[in-house]
Amino acid sequence: MANQHAVPVKGYQKNLQSWFDYMMEGHDRTQLWEMLHEDVVFRSPVVHTPQEGREITFAYLSAAGNTLGNGTFKYTRIFDCGDKAVLEFETEMDGIHVNGIDMVEWDADGKIIDFKVMVRPLKAIQTVHAAMGKMLEQMKAKA
Amino acid sequence: MANQHAVPVKGYQKNLQSWFDYMMEGHDRTQLWEMLHEDVVFRSPVVHTPQEGREITFAYLSAAGNTLGNGTFKYTRIFDCGDKAVLEFETEMDGIHVNGIDMVEWDADGKIIDFKVMVRPLKAIQTVHAAMGKMLEQMKAKA
Repeated sequence: MANQHAVPVKGYQKNLQSWFDYMMEGHDRTQLWEMLHEDVVFRSPVVHTPQEGREITFAYLSAAGNTLGNGTFKYTRIFDCGDKAVLEFETEMDGIHVNGIDMVEWDADGKIIDFKVMVRPLKAIQTVHAAMGKMLEQMKAKA
Repeated sequence: MANQHAVPVKGYQKNLQSWFDYMMEGHDRTQLWEMLHEDVVFRSPVVHTPQEGREITFAYLSAAGNTLGNGTFKYTRIFDCGDKAVLEFETEMDGIHVNGIDMVEWDADGKIIDFKVMVRPLKAIQTVHAAMGKMLEQMKAKA
């Protein structure tokens, strides 16, 4: 498969544009924290159980930013529905091609209330699984 | 997690409505065949390599209909962009909760030109992997 091209990440509605600005311009953690609702839920590609609340969601998303947000990361298709959006991406992790989506929902005040990630193919989810395991160990070691 | 509720599958634009009618009303294989572009590409949740062409895409989608389209299957969120859509679903396979998406693109004539599936969590993709293996064996046995 020829990989899909990156799509522009400018000119979107405010909520989505804030996310793109965070992802594509320096991963400012304060900005990430401000985007998250107190009761936001994070749903990982690996585990069924939802991760509830701002602190754990912040931990997952900022760690994912470090892991996935390397030089190869790009968004390839955008499904923007205003109060919710699906953002398809492609990236490489440890030489494995990762194709995935961020599914984001915002409340009326523009805070992210639900954030779900899916990836394909099987090798990619296995790679993400291994990376998340390491990440959680590091988080525990620091705590 | 409380599972998400099914969303209505009526009242959508023509292309998407045709898909819902196929999925929710009897899986008419002639209808499926008619919806697919000659050069449609199917991208599975398990394998990186795209499956190219109407025959193989038809085989995957009709088999997936048999496997996933059991009594527990429901669509839970719709991201409708006219010429493309993301359809989130939930179902159970062999007692495993499967949360996934159909990502569909149509050409200007309303034919499906690209169909991608992702599922989560890891257990679900493993279950789909096993089911697809069995399905492909059956397809080969019949061929």
